[in-house]
Amino acid sequence: MQSDIEIAQAAKMLPISQVAARLGLDEDLLEHYGKYKAKVSLDPLKDKNRPDGKLILVTAITPTPAGEGKSTTTVGLAQAIAKLGRRVAVALREPSLGPCMGVKGGAAGGGYSQVVPMEDINLHFTGDIHAVSTAHNLLSAMLDNHLQQGNELNIDPRRIAWRRVLDMNDRALRNIIVGLGGKAHGVPREDGYDISVASEVMAILCLAGDLADLKERLSRIIVAYTYAGEPVTAGDLKAAGAMAALLKDAIKPNLVQTLENVPAFIHGGPFANIAHGCNSVTATRMALKTADYVVTEAGFGADLGAEKFFNIKCRYAGLAPRAVVLVATVRALKMHGGVAKPDLAKPDAAAVTRGAANLAKHYENIAKFGVPAVVAVNIFPTDSQEELDAVLAICQNLGAPVALSNVWAEGGAGGIQLAEMVLALADSGQAAFAPLYPLELPLTEKARIIAKEIYGAEDVNFTKEAEQMLAVLTKNGYGNLPVCMAKTQYSFSDDPTRLGRPEGFTVTVRQARISAGAGFVVLLTGEIMTMPGLPKRPAAENIDIDANGRISGLF
Amino acid sequence: MQSDIEIAQAAKMLPISQVAARLGLDEDLLEHYGKYKAKVSLDPLKDKNRPDGKLILVTAITPTPAGEGKSTTTVGLAQAIAKLGRRVAVALREPSLGPCMGVKGGAAGGGYSQVVPMEDINLHFTGDIHAVSTAHNLLSAMLDNHLQQGNELNIDPRRIAWRRVLDMNDRALRNIIVGLGGKAHGVPREDGYDISVASEVMAILCLAGDLADLKERLSRIIVAYTYAGEPVTAGDLKAAGAMAALLKDAIKPNLVQTLENVPAFIHGGPFANIAHGCNSVTATRMALKTADYVVTEAGFGADLGAEKFFNIKCRYAGLAPRAVVLVATVRALKMHGGVAKPDLAKPDAAAVTRGAANLAKHYENIAKFGVPAVVAVNIFPTDSQEELDAVLAICQNLGAPVALSNVWAEGGAGGIQLAEMVLALADSGQAAFAPLYPLELPLTEKARIIAKEIYGAEDVNFTKEAEQMLAVLTKNGYGNLPVCMAKTQYSFSDDPTRLGRPEGFTVTVRQARISAGAGFVVLLTGEIMTMPGLPKRPAAENIDIDANGRISGLF
Repeated sequence: MQSDIEIAQAAKMLPISQVAARLGLDEDLLEHYGKYKAKVSLDPLKDKNRPDGKLILVTAITPTPAGEGKSTTTVGLAQAIAKLGRRVAVALREPSLGPCMGVKGGAAGGGYSQVVPMEDINLHFTGDIHAVSTAHNLLSAMLDNHLQQGNELNIDPRRIAWRRVLDMNDRALRNIIVGLGGKAHGVPREDGYDISVASEVMAILCLAGDLADLKERLSRIIVAYTYAGEPVTAGDLKAAGAMAALLKDAIKPNLVQTLENVPAFIHGGPFANIAHGCNSVTATRMALKTADYVVTEAGFGADLGAEKFFNIKCRYAGLAPRAVVLVATVRALKMHGGVAKPDLAKPDAAAVTRGAANLAKHYENIAKFGVPAVVAVNIFPTDSQEELDAVLAICQNLGAPVALSNVWAEGGAGGIQLAEMVLALADSGQAAFAPLYPLELPLTEKARIIAKEIYGAEDVNFTKEAEQMLAVLTKNGYGNLPVCMAKTQYSFSDDPTRLGRPEGFTVTVRQARISAGAGFVVLLTGEIMTMPGLPKRPAAENIDIDANGRISGLF
Repeated sequence: MQSDIEIAQAAKMLPISQVAARLGLDEDLLEHYGKYKAKVSLDPLKDKNRPDGKLILVTAITPTPAGEGKSTTTVGLAQAIAKLGRRVAVALREPSLGPCMGVKGGAAGGGYSQVVPMEDINLHFTGDIHAVSTAHNLLSAMLDNHLQQGNELNIDPRRIAWRRVLDMNDRALRNIIVGLGGKAHGVPREDGYDISVASEVMAILCLAGDLADLKERLSRIIVAYTYAGEPVTAGDLKAAGAMAALLKDAIKPNLVQTLENVPAFIHGGPFANIAHGCNSVTATRMALKTADYVVTEAGFGADLGAEKFFNIKCRYAGLAPRAVVLVATVRALKMHGGVAKPDLAKPDAAAVTRGAANLAKHYENIAKFGVPAVVAVNIFPTDSQEELDAVLAICQNLGAPVALSNVWAEGGAGGIQLAEMVLALADSGQAAFAPLYPLELPLTEKARIIAKEIYGAEDVNFTKEAEQMLAVLTKNGYGNLPVCMAKTQYSFSDDPTRLGRPEGFTVTVRQARISAGAGFVVLLTGEIMTMPGLPKRPAAENIDIDANGRISGLF
């Protein structure tokens, strides 16, 4: 069996101009990055007369640590829709380099449903994440320089909210002390690094509609508090202009293609816990302006990814999704049915059936946003017929449309049935999207609605620290922002060991943070790791390049 | 008067394919980065039958802190050569982002002798420096991960020679402690950041001939020593393959153009003290393969830049330069003539004459490498006729060819006389290039030759620490490498206050370091700052971008 990178390297790619032409994008709107990548000018977004295509969200049930194949399904579904003769585009997040060097290897779909050129997308791509890191770290340098040069703004070095970032898994940088070495070398203080995709700059890049909006949002970032407790912003440090200049190309969506030459916008990739976990608004809008159907995804399971996609991204960007694909796997359902990780490969249809409650809850949740859903069973070679039948039976009981999807092994041809069902839903006029809560509600109440309606919790508790912070934020005028829940992706609850459809639990919000530039209040329900580490044998050890430039070991 | 960025933005650029065509580079050898930048495949370098053009080095007398306009002269001279109907290309270093956000603003020539697109070249360009930073920091992460995961190689955490890097001026990162927070978060140790262009990875990228050579050099990098004192390399950490993969595009030269549409390879930019300070070997070779004349530069004054260009770069790459341009300014000569900085703008022809000794020494030095030189007087609007006449008289006394160069104000038209003299020298067959010392000499002896012959020192001393390190390096097989002198650029001596042509001094080598991948032994004669800081009012505060993407404040 071929590895993902071998399949990707054997792809017959079209020159990117031809891919763009399929979307009606003229050459003069493109900035080429090599032969198979381009950035697209934001100009087409200004054309108010051009009707938007139909937006389809791919999300998933509560995942196993290996992931359930959302990206693969997104790509495969778009390939299938293209096979049915429709003008379709993909909109996906761009992968972070850190995990690629760590456990995960490259990330751009899998099997015969990938985006290409795979090596480029995984290694630097068009430089967006480097631009985010640079803009972020410029702000850090200007902040520490401000402390060093007299601290006119009266910043309390113990209350700095802006860590540094690096697109690398590097645990030794989680907790550091900077500014050592004496008077000429800065003001000593505690600091730390997050991975770049956890930067608020990434979240901002992905929510900004254009350069002016981007700069305005950057200026609102809160980096620290004064000794008097007043927030200090990037604007106060006069950093926003230079940061926006550093992001001038990064804000433009990247166009690549799938293995079957379907246009794919791969752009932006914020964390799905402390941020909203979706590709950029500019990429989604560009796809909608240029294609009749757009397939996109959101991070983690639907309780995190879809909730934020709807309540944060769609609300801010004025998007109205027409259909949702809920990806389920036999493997994940068995896990929710109580099977231990080492036994997941063994056939066990009864366990699949026991896991149904997790799928049911996600399916119910999506309906609460007014968008119809279809379940896609992402087939693995190890699935037994009995297990697949059990999933179909679960969906029948739920009254949920369901299709088996074999796009990993077969590409678009493996997703025809799914595509037909999705198109039928998207074209049906059934969708009546609305966010789950109005922004006018108090921050605590917004969290309560998500916890009860989406997670199925009895209630939500706030630690004293979180409560106080929320009161301060409300007083400072941030009460009308949406909330961004940072919760484990492995359970509906805030306890990763509670699988299936847990009941009778409460969620505890331990900490609140403000992402004033991105425009949401982050509520942390547990320890969220924002700087991964490398494993004992990092994937990087196997990555190589030969004298002809051919890369191996990216998976 | 227009600023550099205003002049640059008004430029009539040709599509980069047309620029490439002037060098006979076909479309299929290009990877476009937008409309006006491209990376060039290394394939043309394999063509042994294609004759090389003639290489011209631009260097300078001992500079003022503002610099004497080497890049401007390089670009302007090439524009003048083009006006004389010759096929010419420029090969320059690419600018680092850090200084651009600090004091210096953008760096890509000046006035009417710039390379464009200026904003892109200064902000991210084609991502080379980001790739260098990423490859460097991957090695850092793998090193700390090795410590964390059991330290099989028995690395002494007190003897780690590999700092982290960032392309930013950030003094607070000079001296840090990493790995805090407890067992799960790494092994605590002292660490620090250098600016990315000080990375050995940058020096390696600039000396590597191809991908295989690059990977081999990366694997030789010494990152630490074991408790037993044995060196540990990037190869031992299995990092070289992934690092090379991260540099797969960065090794390819970048093609842009000057304001007058002369092809310019802007590629690589290592420090000129702890590294060799020249653009990449691949860029210089590509320029030589595709143009009849190639104008390139080396960092700082000729005592540092030209010496390393000849003894390190030309020796390793097998290059034979045909002519040297020694840039002098009225301003710098006045400084060497004893005028204090606040008075440098006042006309003072006598001071110019007193400063002659500095120019004379550099001119003599260049002859020691067997390459003929011409003096270019880079005219500033504030220069008086008497002062310019004084420079001409100095050169007449020396028997040195000299031309006034007004390329900053006039572009190529201001450098016609210079171009004619340079072409005459380059075509004369006078050049008989040879490095100053054979590699077989002991490391100490190589340093002595440079100090005596180039700096004019009486002798060179070594601290005990440096002497011991050189003995260890010699024992470990590094005795046959060239030496890379890290000395102040503001004096021939190791004391930056000794201007002109100091005599009767000795140079003290305080420390020795090995850059085993780059292939040289660095000898430090004083404190070398490898991580700059931001000034009280960073240039970044003035950088801005408007809603249409137009950047201002970049200088």
